Amino acid sequence: MNYKLTLAYDGTRYDGWQKQGNTEKTIQGKLENLLSRLEGRTVEVQGAGRTDAGVHAKGQVCSCKLNRNWTEEALRDAMNQYLPADIAILRVEQVSERFHARLSAVGKIYCYRIWTGAVPNVFERNYVYHHKEPISVVSMRQAASYLIGTQDFKSFCSNKHMKKSTIRTLDAIEIEELTDEIRITYRGNGFLYNMVRILTGTLIEVGEGKRTPESVTDILEQKDRQQAGFTAPPQGLTLLEVEY
Amino acid sequence: MNYKLTLAYDGTRYDGWQKQGNTEKTIQGKLENLLSRLEGRTVEVQGAGRTDAGVHAKGQVCSCKLNRNWTEEALRDAMNQYLPADIAILRVEQVSERFHARLSAVGKIYCYRIWTGAVPNVFERNYVYHHKEPISVVSMRQAASYLIGTQDFKSFCSNKHMKKSTIRTLDAIEIEELTDEIRITYRGNGFLYNMVRILTGTLIEVGEGKRTPESVTDILEQKDRQQAGFTAPPQGLTLLEVEY
Repeated sequence: MNYKLTLAYDGTRYDGWQKQGNTEKTIQGKLENLLSRLEGRTVEVQGAGRTDAGVHAKGQVCSCKLNRNWTEEALRDAMNQYLPADIAILRVEQVSERFHARLSAVGKIYCYRIWTGAVPNVFERNYVYHHKEPISVVSMRQAASYLIGTQDFKSFCSNKHMKKSTIRTLDAIEIEELTDEIRITYRGNGFLYNMVRILTGTLIEVGEGKRTPESVTDILEQKDRQQAGFTAPPQGLTLLEVEY
Repeated sequence: MNYKLTLAYDGTRYDGWQKQGNTEKTIQGKLENLLSRLEGRTVEVQGAGRTDAGVHAKGQVCSCKLNRNWTEEALRDAMNQYLPADIAILRVEQVSERFHARLSAVGKIYCYRIWTGAVPNVFERNYVYHHKEPISVVSMRQAASYLIGTQDFKSFCSNKHMKKSTIRTLDAIEIEELTDEIRITYRGNGFLYNMVRILTGTLIEVGEGKRTPESVTDILEQKDRQQAGFTAPPQGLTLLEVEY
């Protein structure tokens, strides 16, 4: 049986999604170790996308093939019983054999949270980036408008040796101004390595007045990572949803 | 100068408010160590009330006398600069010499959060008590109605050797039913040791059907801790506000 798992995790303690080195320090490793134990054989888990160390998820999706025929609820509860408190399976669905969490995905939604209060946020400290200096949301929105569409985002990719296409479609960037918080939501068909964090760092520099909103069109044209802004820290970022 | 500090803290890592043993493991100890360093002499801090190990605060209040004449904002920012990320000074006020955080307080508001979802809450895991079995909010509300008023709460006090009066006034118990969460807010003129947690444990047992709502009047009459329910775990509890 092929299963689609939707999960949430607090990425604070982890080295990111993808298994590497100590498998207990990655989300994929944790899931594979547990499912392999439940199945009594090695199980592989395909994630919709990798999240960096410290990045969170409220709707990451992965798929895996299991021999044992679990009901959806029983698998969810069995996994939650053994997973640590910072990872939770939200939903289990039996899906067709052709479903693949990464290859079948058609879009993703990410949210970046910037805490702008003069006083640090004690309870959300691991889920926001604290930036006390004033940021102009108006300028950020203007810059964001130039980023929308199907474009080459090479300047917003940390992977220097990226051989594949760096063309992606950004459907929407929504920038909300809440009390003491700016929340940026990105929706697109796919994201390059560190792309959301570099987009966010660049938008913050625009908001600070260090760059003009129009300058982002130059950055796109240059196709050079050095032209874009800093990589915003991981803890502000959450993968909200994967679309199929 | 006499200062009133309003602060928030995530109590997860601490042995509670009151200094004892390793001063770096208590909130009061942390604050006194920092203020003593800033003043260059030993500074004492009076808290409005003690919170147990693992209990949080969004509006704890304390007072202290400082020789140095700080502006309100400068003291707030200096303290936040040195405090760990799980403690934050929200507000500093210069107050009259007669103000004392504990003696001047006339009321407190506490909130207890019970997570009732089938799936654990990854992001709020340290701030809620996870209780998967169904609880009747209707029964809890009925039981709560008997607890309101000026009464002897000896049965709801963990301190066996309490010599002082155990009579307190509970002004209100509000029980909200949210999606996957029950939130109980207590407002009263003062609370005994563990009182909010024992009240919560008792209300949960009523909600589970293990006790009748009416039985809480017997518990009050018996004046015996053994008659009341369990002490609900600390992480669900937050001190919201101290009233003056």
